[in-house]
Amino acid sequence: MASLRIARFLETERSTIDCMPERIGSVSELRSAYVHGGLTPTDLVERVLAGLDGRAGGPVWISTVPAGELSARAEWLAGSGDPATLPLYGIPFAVKDNIDVAGMITTAGCPDFGYRAAEDAPVVRRLLDAGALLVGKTNLDQFATGLTGTRSPYGSCESVFGGGLISGGSSSGSAVAVAAGQVSFALGTDTAGSGRVPAALNGIVGLKPTRGLLSTVGVVPACRSLDCVSIFATDVGGSLDVLHAARGVPASDPWGRPLPVERVAPRMPGTLRLGVPRTEDLEFFGDAGQAVRFAAGVQQLRALVGPGRPVPLGAFFEAGDLLYQGPWVAERLAGLDGFLREHPEAVAAVTRAVLETGRRYDAIDVFRGQHRLRELRARVDQLWQEVDVLVVPTVGTTFTLDEIAEDPIGRNAMLGRYTQFANLLDLAAVTVPNGFTAAGRPASLTLVGPAFTDTTLAQLAAAFTATATATDRTATATAADRTATATATAVDRADVAAGRPVARVASAAGPARVLIAVVGRHLAGESRNAELTDRGATLAGAARTAPRYRLYRLDTPDGGGLPGLVRLAPADPDGHAIEVELWRLPVTAVGELLAGVPAPLSLGWVRLHDGRDVLGFLCEAYAAGPEAEDISATGGWRAYRRAAAHRT
Amino acid sequence: MASLRIARFLETERSTIDCMPERIGSVSELRSAYVHGGLTPTDLVERVLAGLDGRAGGPVWISTVPAGELSARAEWLAGSGDPATLPLYGIPFAVKDNIDVAGMITTAGCPDFGYRAAEDAPVVRRLLDAGALLVGKTNLDQFATGLTGTRSPYGSCESVFGGGLISGGSSSGSAVAVAAGQVSFALGTDTAGSGRVPAALNGIVGLKPTRGLLSTVGVVPACRSLDCVSIFATDVGGSLDVLHAARGVPASDPWGRPLPVERVAPRMPGTLRLGVPRTEDLEFFGDAGQAVRFAAGVQQLRALVGPGRPVPLGAFFEAGDLLYQGPWVAERLAGLDGFLREHPEAVAAVTRAVLETGRRYDAIDVFRGQHRLRELRARVDQLWQEVDVLVVPTVGTTFTLDEIAEDPIGRNAMLGRYTQFANLLDLAAVTVPNGFTAAGRPASLTLVGPAFTDTTLAQLAAAFTATATATDRTATATAADRTATATATAVDRADVAAGRPVARVASAAGPARVLIAVVGRHLAGESRNAELTDRGATLAGAARTAPRYRLYRLDTPDGGGLPGLVRLAPADPDGHAIEVELWRLPVTAVGELLAGVPAPLSLGWVRLHDGRDVLGFLCEAYAAGPEAEDISATGGWRAYRRAAAHRT
Repeated sequence: MASLRIARFLETERSTIDCMPERIGSVSELRSAYVHGGLTPTDLVERVLAGLDGRAGGPVWISTVPAGELSARAEWLAGSGDPATLPLYGIPFAVKDNIDVAGMITTAGCPDFGYRAAEDAPVVRRLLDAGALLVGKTNLDQFATGLTGTRSPYGSCESVFGGGLISGGSSSGSAVAVAAGQVSFALGTDTAGSGRVPAALNGIVGLKPTRGLLSTVGVVPACRSLDCVSIFATDVGGSLDVLHAARGVPASDPWGRPLPVERVAPRMPGTLRLGVPRTEDLEFFGDAGQAVRFAAGVQQLRALVGPGRPVPLGAFFEAGDLLYQGPWVAERLAGLDGFLREHPEAVAAVTRAVLETGRRYDAIDVFRGQHRLRELRARVDQLWQEVDVLVVPTVGTTFTLDEIAEDPIGRNAMLGRYTQFANLLDLAAVTVPNGFTAAGRPASLTLVGPAFTDTTLAQLAAAFTATATATDRTATATAADRTATATATAVDRADVAAGRPVARVASAAGPARVLIAVVGRHLAGESRNAELTDRGATLAGAARTAPRYRLYRLDTPDGGGLPGLVRLAPADPDGHAIEVELWRLPVTAVGELLAGVPAPLSLGWVRLHDGRDVLGFLCEAYAAGPEAEDISATGGWRAYRRAAAHRT
Repeated sequence: MASLRIARFLETERSTIDCMPERIGSVSELRSAYVHGGLTPTDLVERVLAGLDGRAGGPVWISTVPAGELSARAEWLAGSGDPATLPLYGIPFAVKDNIDVAGMITTAGCPDFGYRAAEDAPVVRRLLDAGALLVGKTNLDQFATGLTGTRSPYGSCESVFGGGLISGGSSSGSAVAVAAGQVSFALGTDTAGSGRVPAALNGIVGLKPTRGLLSTVGVVPACRSLDCVSIFATDVGGSLDVLHAARGVPASDPWGRPLPVERVAPRMPGTLRLGVPRTEDLEFFGDAGQAVRFAAGVQQLRALVGPGRPVPLGAFFEAGDLLYQGPWVAERLAGLDGFLREHPEAVAAVTRAVLETGRRYDAIDVFRGQHRLRELRARVDQLWQEVDVLVVPTVGTTFTLDEIAEDPIGRNAMLGRYTQFANLLDLAAVTVPNGFTAAGRPASLTLVGPAFTDTTLAQLAAAFTATATATDRTATATAADRTATATATAVDRADVAAGRPVARVASAAGPARVLIAVVGRHLAGESRNAELTDRGATLAGAARTAPRYRLYRLDTPDGGGLPGLVRLAPADPDGHAIEVELWRLPVTAVGELLAGVPAPLSLGWVRLHDGRDVLGFLCEAYAAGPEAEDISATGGWRAYRRAAAHRT
């Protein structure tokens, strides 16, 4: 690696990257190679092992899965798994060594603290279940406390760009393993910025999900109320693939949060309102090169989403300062206090010095800090009424290992300036490369938004990397992100309550026809289907609604009942995808059809599972009352009727 | 009052109550009297003042609005307000004296702490804006710390049932003022149970809303992160009316939470799954009479919602104990510490003793306590997957003033057994009378559910009080709730889900035409009216809907907004008659019209004021969310636009 690599990135073209034999490839590259290119997990494991050769004992890895186990897992996968259905089939990944993997030691960067984990952390288990291949556990700043990558008894990681540049931390090994191409993705954790700072310093993508979206069960707590599991990948699309596979928390997870349904549908970049820090709030610690890069990145974003509006950062910075200069340091002691008292010598001096400051605070300080945070959060929440996404530098400047050694705490704080507020303020964040400074240092920016905007932020981040000039980013990001953007554009649309005229009448031979989603008595073979066919309707196929509905059985005088489809509120997690049939009906016949249908049914827009909106039968919510049986769980009227027939 | 009154309640009939001249009447009784009975605010104020006479200086009230001011406000209201549109027109109410009213002293039960409030607390402002008449500020346990009503330098309140029974607290004066019929409703606050315990001890309804639903800005903090403003009324319907008027928080309120859209639509009692405490978890502190009453209340509930399932209360009790026997006591000091140090003599000895225990805890204790609470909350959240509502006794037993004096802290803790967990666990709660024990002590039960189930709980509570036998509850609750229930039953239901073929296509010369009710942009002269006229539609006249709807303003990108008409559940008493226009449209054009209208609008059946059902534009309920302004009170889109234009 080292400075040679910087030059290579600066001049690179896609073909150059393809010639780098040691790079394992991105999630999408490997998936394509498995499905279309004849790659097998066993082939891949050989490449992974070759890539680790001579480096497995270095500071990047604390422990690795034995080669034999890795090969056995690959063989099992080749025999039992299907690359077309397992979303992470045969994708190699690393796990930060503060996250449990069954049978392996979890050290949290402190050998004396280490314990052999009995079970996989649920987030790891989900990735394994999705077909991913675990390669090993990576180095970190001890107890995930620090942003430098230099606070570990296993050695300090250097950035893949070399030149004595720190890797950043605390998820140092995970970021370097991805950036060096040893694995396709890696899990980190992120409390103050540990999933973003090392992404910035290694030129890769860091996705810090909304708190509670990925389970933190089986993760050694740093600040438990703020900890997130984060994702490193070379491209945004890869990080999203991993997010989707990893998402979902056990009901017993005290920190898990269900994903509000509405937020699943990301907003497209063109619809977003951008917030840009006021110039006077930006601090680059004298690093003019970073300032230049950030300004250039903002210009690229503006080309995508318009000029945006200036945003003051005062509330963000004040919130961030609570983390290390306020009572939250004591939260780190809530888990570690006993160990620290019994094994003071086992803890690195700088880590101990930081942790011990937590003893300064009493209970009143904590509540006052939390009250102040609520006030700051209310201010920031009001900001989200005006902008959808805020762009900040990931780090204001970069440091070498020697520079950190000179001032390990002060310079650590500088690294966290733009990251440490995110979890306190309940924000999601996606970090992407933003080229290099004239001095050859990597630059990076981070998009932040309110909780549950993860996918929206990622879409914008992907669009950003796709429009960046070739010399300004890693080439691996290009192809994958272009694909992701194209897909997302096709899938989704801003539609609801748009107020604009909508012309969704399909033009075809004969009279214009519209698609109508039917759920009950108008289904093929059901009692009122002739009301469609008599009017010239043709069956266009079966479909499912988006998982945002409930289906009720409304009583009818004939005792047969009829189903009523009710869309749920955005925040309601209990939506179901309901089976419907799509019928193509002459638009002139819609009125008669509607006039023959009783209240509380109406014809409105039904969101399908693939994102389309079509006309369809809805039920007014008032009628889904006591007499109405909730039959959502059956999945549809036909299934409900079958089940009911079976019962009687 | 006193024991005479107990006997009176036990034997009472409606006619008896009518003879009690001092009772002001419930919200719905007064509303009816204003609209149909010729009552004027000025008449009412005379009655209010007569009711206060000789009692305004007692322990119930700390300060009252001067008679002249009250009369002036009544006259202003009579001249400017409309009882048909102002939801609380001329309804007299009291405010606990830890909530700010502009120009009045806020004492929080501590004269030396008192300050003259510059502004109304937003929650008070909303009630005044809804037409309510503020009568005065009520006594409380000092700093809202306590559940007895005996910790106030202004004197101890006695229950309206007399016999030396405590009023309960901390919202002692508010509860007694309502129970004694001096006002129709009152605001309390509820952190550990202060809005429920005094309701239980005075035989009235206490609604403790979900945290953040009512603004706590302008409220003297007790435990700021847990404080709620609560509502006392004689009947559930009245408490709901007040909730709807009071709901809504300023964006700057750090503790405010938007109401998730879906929860606006309450679930009807028949659809609810009941949770009943395991017998072994119930603790009545030796009060067999209360145990008998609770069992009887549970039986009544079961008649409404089925047998339910047993629920262990361990997690609830452990969470509740964190409030006074854990680090949360320190949260009370977060606001009061300075005052307490400077004016130790100004604080009651028992209050000081309680508050001082907060100094025992350090910052680590707080975080550990909060982590434990998260674990407990996760357990309770899992319970809500199995039951929708949990019934608990409000208090396990009751105490006299003398009994509290014997053990002011220990017996206070007994009173909070079934209430103090609610805010820690983020629950909503509604307290209703549950008859009297054989010894003549009031009994009460509380329905609790997860956040934002307020209305659902209230519906069940109303059904419960409506089915209770006359001798088992306060007569005032009877009449009002019977009326509410009867109305709900009679008004609706038979029409929905009829399943019968409907042939509502009006036949006329030329192509068949249908009547379409339009409410917004399709009105004559509005921006999209041409979509009707271009298709040959003709205006058939103006009309009003049946009084079962609400109208919301949905945001649109152009800023103009559009209205959404949502039909209410049959039992919902808050329907409005909304102005519509009827247009006669060729039935063949309905499809095109519909295809040009965006989600969440649909075309379904609108019930008119004269009983007809016509096709018309509806809005799916999911979209009538917190962002959607409820403009029902304006009566229609045109009136709303006029009012909005007038404001700007």
